[in-house]
Amino acid sequence: MRIALLGGTGDIGQGLALRWARDSNHDIVIGSRDPEKARERAETYESDLEAVGHDRKITGFENAMAADRADVAVLAVPAYHIADTVEAVADRLDDTILVTPAVGMGRDDDGFHYNPPPTGSVAALAADSAPDGVPVVGAFHNLAAGRLIDLDAAFDWDTPVFGDDADAKATVMGLADDIEGLRAVDAGGLANAAEIESLTPLLINLARENDDLHDLGVKFW
Amino acid sequence: MRIALLGGTGDIGQGLALRWARDSNHDIVIGSRDPEKARERAETYESDLEAVGHDRKITGFENAMAADRADVAVLAVPAYHIADTVEAVADRLDDTILVTPAVGMGRDDDGFHYNPPPTGSVAALAADSAPDGVPVVGAFHNLAAGRLIDLDAAFDWDTPVFGDDADAKATVMGLADDIEGLRAVDAGGLANAAEIESLTPLLINLARENDDLHDLGVKFW
Repeated sequence: MRIALLGGTGDIGQGLALRWARDSNHDIVIGSRDPEKARERAETYESDLEAVGHDRKITGFENAMAADRADVAVLAVPAYHIADTVEAVADRLDDTILVTPAVGMGRDDDGFHYNPPPTGSVAALAADSAPDGVPVVGAFHNLAAGRLIDLDAAFDWDTPVFGDDADAKATVMGLADDIEGLRAVDAGGLANAAEIESLTPLLINLARENDDLHDLGVKFW
Repeated sequence: MRIALLGGTGDIGQGLALRWARDSNHDIVIGSRDPEKARERAETYESDLEAVGHDRKITGFENAMAADRADVAVLAVPAYHIADTVEAVADRLDDTILVTPAVGMGRDDDGFHYNPPPTGSVAALAADSAPDGVPVVGAFHNLAAGRLIDLDAAFDWDTPVFGDDADAKATVMGLADDIEGLRAVDAGGLANAAEIESLTPLLINLARENDDLHDLGVKFW
């Protein structure tokens, strides 16, 4: 499968790219608004993988080119860039599943707070922005990028996956399960997005308040 | 310590009562609007504990009497009874910590959704309802009552605890840690309530969507 990580130069994109490249045979493509930056980061990721004994080709392109022919495109961008990123790649989407891990958050003295866009969730914003017929799936909100990026680090985490297109959701759940130590759990449809997106500020607040908790994920049982 | 479970005839009150009675030496008092029901349930809980080899005295009273001289009073009532329950016991609160495990939820075809009161969270509603100087702490939102009630069931769960009074929060974290298999995690102040209260509909939705997940709790790591 061909996976494009749009905004894949950021930390969550880097983490997913490294883990999929190490743990699966999927083609990994890094997208960025700046194609030169995408190419440079792809080379860095190749070096990181080589350092742990994995010889993998990772390519880098401008976002639209990265999305071209991708089976799955992950919108690994801040919530306020979801709409323009989808718009920039819209005419390249052809049987492509869009995946959103983004969360809208605000911050005050007490900590981080879920602050969704007027659509009610970032996933709903992605769905509103997507061309007709392009399925949107939410996943990977609750993964600590720092732990993903550190290929020496292990974890035993769940990621809730949600979406209205059952086939697209099943595909993304499979991709999540491809990552060692990660289990996809079905969180229902897009209408359930807010409760999953709210996990991200909660995990940040817990890491902030508890000296013994860092780079937190979650396990449901 | 004397712990009053107001609305302790319901399932989360029952679960906490049984676990504290089994795993600690705290005095457990069941409160209800109906004192006769409170007494009957207290006797039932005593029998449940005796059946697993624990000889414990549990008392039952009308809510205001149950709250009297309690160190901690848990508002184990539905969100829409938080305000009237606090009002009913207000003049009995004397150095008493109020604990709120309640969540406002709505339901549609997709699942359960966080539906806070206009105060922004149930915890904020409890704090607004409480007399001046009575600390409010949020805890125990994310525990599956069915698993708590089944004294043969084990778990390894976390519960985020939050509140603006550091001493009161520390007391409730200690009470959470008294339950075998439960770890309190510090979730900061009352302003962080919404992200913790949102866990409850998420856990219900996950149990609803995944055949292999039941009576779910959560572990952060």
